Amino acid sequence: MTSDNQPRCFSHQSLTEFTEQVFRCSGIPRVDASTAAEVLVTSDLRGIDSHGIARLRPYVNAIRSGRINPKPNIAIIRETPSTAQIDGDRGLGLVVGPRANQVAMEKAAACGSGWVAVKNSNHYGIAGYYPLQALRRDLIGFSMTNSSALVTPHLGAERMLGTNPLAVAFPGAEEPPVVIDMASSIVAYGKIEIAMRENRQIEPGWAIDSEGNATRDPHAVRDGGALLPIGSDRSSGGHKGYCLSSLVDLLSGVLSGANWGPFVPPFILAVTQAGQPVGDGLGHFFGALQIAGFSDVDAFKKRVDQWIRTMRATPPAPGESAVLIPGDPERDAESHRSVHGIPLLPTVAADLEIAADLAGVQFPDPIPQ
Amino acid sequence: MTSDNQPRCFSHQSLTEFTEQVFRCSGIPRVDASTAAEVLVTSDLRGIDSHGIARLRPYVNAIRSGRINPKPNIAIIRETPSTAQIDGDRGLGLVVGPRANQVAMEKAAACGSGWVAVKNSNHYGIAGYYPLQALRRDLIGFSMTNSSALVTPHLGAERMLGTNPLAVAFPGAEEPPVVIDMASSIVAYGKIEIAMRENRQIEPGWAIDSEGNATRDPHAVRDGGALLPIGSDRSSGGHKGYCLSSLVDLLSGVLSGANWGPFVPPFILAVTQAGQPVGDGLGHFFGALQIAGFSDVDAFKKRVDQWIRTMRATPPAPGESAVLIPGDPERDAESHRSVHGIPLLPTVAADLEIAADLAGVQFPDPIPQ
Repeated sequence: MTSDNQPRCFSHQSLTEFTEQVFRCSGIPRVDASTAAEVLVTSDLRGIDSHGIARLRPYVNAIRSGRINPKPNIAIIRETPSTAQIDGDRGLGLVVGPRANQVAMEKAAACGSGWVAVKNSNHYGIAGYYPLQALRRDLIGFSMTNSSALVTPHLGAERMLGTNPLAVAFPGAEEPPVVIDMASSIVAYGKIEIAMRENRQIEPGWAIDSEGNATRDPHAVRDGGALLPIGSDRSSGGHKGYCLSSLVDLLSGVLSGANWGPFVPPFILAVTQAGQPVGDGLGHFFGALQIAGFSDVDAFKKRVDQWIRTMRATPPAPGESAVLIPGDPERDAESHRSVHGIPLLPTVAADLEIAADLAGVQFPDPIPQ
Repeated sequence: MTSDNQPRCFSHQSLTEFTEQVFRCSGIPRVDASTAAEVLVTSDLRGIDSHGIARLRPYVNAIRSGRINPKPNIAIIRETPSTAQIDGDRGLGLVVGPRANQVAMEKAAACGSGWVAVKNSNHYGIAGYYPLQALRRDLIGFSMTNSSALVTPHLGAERMLGTNPLAVAFPGAEEPPVVIDMASSIVAYGKIEIAMRENRQIEPGWAIDSEGNATRDPHAVRDGGALLPIGSDRSSGGHKGYCLSSLVDLLSGVLSGANWGPFVPPFILAVTQAGQPVGDGLGHFFGALQIAGFSDVDAFKKRVDQWIRTMRATPPAPGESAVLIPGDPERDAESHRSVHGIPLLPTVAADLEIAADLAGVQFPDPIPQ
């Protein structure tokens, strides 16, 4: 632990190796531990600290408590040439997700597209990890997952849906890919936690309190309140954010046979689950489209380049510097962090040092300043 | 024409028959004219007046001017078992769309899923029509289309993307289906037109003027301004609306080989097109997933019922009566209008009477009050 509040930076290689060791010591087989570590640290590398290595201890705790099965029998229980339903057997989402995504990609390579609904899983890391894998094979990849309820339906007053993210990626030729990776809630719950830590109000339109009234108090959101969907209220398109969140839940949860809506099991124990399960675990939905099934691949990538350059050339609004392309912020983070390391707050590093001690593994040294 | 400003109501059967006759007199073959009429009047029946029969004259004008080909050779130019690229040969979007959707549904029936990218088309009616067809075959249907630019990318100051709608539908067992049908702009352009007619300001956060500054003046939107994506600004998730609009454009336009972004040809001549075409016509993207490829069909429909009932049971926010299910407003409109008729404003009816005269067809009588 450090005495000040400054983050220290660690190379992503050292954090990946450390994460893999911790997973192995928790009973995860070597290949799976390696995959899970890669998914987790990809999140940190891309600047999405909330979904990365900061979650290692909760994952390990869930393995130790028996809620996550370290050696799952991940099985296709129903399939057609281009679809499958997979039972994750309570495995680590970071292992079940990549396996299911692999099935989607293989089906796409074989017959043009592949779509896989997964039940009996748990948190799978960042949604954006999966379409990034598809990109390498000239596939357009899709990924979505439901998650425990934090968001109210439009016009509602209670948590009924997760932040239910979705991700899709399109490869360019010379330009970097377009990578869409977004929650269907107005903001991630992490922003509420940050406001609590910094003793600040949240923005208008983000959330409601336990009575369903608009609130700017982050504590009121925590204490039985809820986030709003993208678009916030009727006039900014809140019903459309609700549609999107529903879409993710219906494909990931209802179609797969997992839990859905308020029944999705919590990852963090502070979140309580409503009622009896209506399915198995948490659900994901993966897809892959073979680009060659629609277009000459090189010609498509060149058109994506042209699309990217056209959007970048949009005159910016007054006071803004430029129009970004989906994926730019994460790519910038990755460029920087792959060289300068991943910054970990002292509290996160301390938590990981506990995980290291429990596993009997050496926590890596930070990069010298 | 009527002397007052009250709408008159027409049975949807009479409007469908009339529309079919007008299309036939424009050189559209009988079967295609029947399909096109059904798509168009479905929009009116579901309460989406902006995309229905009010557009009949612009369609007919485009056929007469040669921009729309009345007898297209709609052809699959590339395919795999579960994907296809289709060239609409400048046919009526209301004919090309259903044909392409049919291909997607047949592929789904044969191999689990079907995905079709279409170029060289034009406006295809309401996005929601297509997944409604899929529902009848126990498929989960997807439909999206790009459209001429009216929306700025997040942080931008110029029209670069269409209102790019997407639609998806999920069947229930006893409950009516969940039907998501939404533009990716914060509102439809029709709301700007209504505000101009009624001499009202638009809501804050809907649009920018030609300089990229926020505006509440609908005329400033018309005169070179732009709509914002769902979510409006950064704090309400405007970047996410931009991601969604990009997703629709990349699949419908860039993947299909159609025009995309600011290059999509205008439907209404008041909208000018930026620069040379970068592809053929306007683009759509259709998809269908075989429910049986993931789940027992009846069990799935029962889970959808349970999902619907759970969401409806959400306590409403103060001042709201209930949480709706996506598709409720359109279903209510359809229930009412299929009995009481479709209301047409005098200006719309007058326009259709001109179309009737030009085609040498009798315009139907309204339902007696």
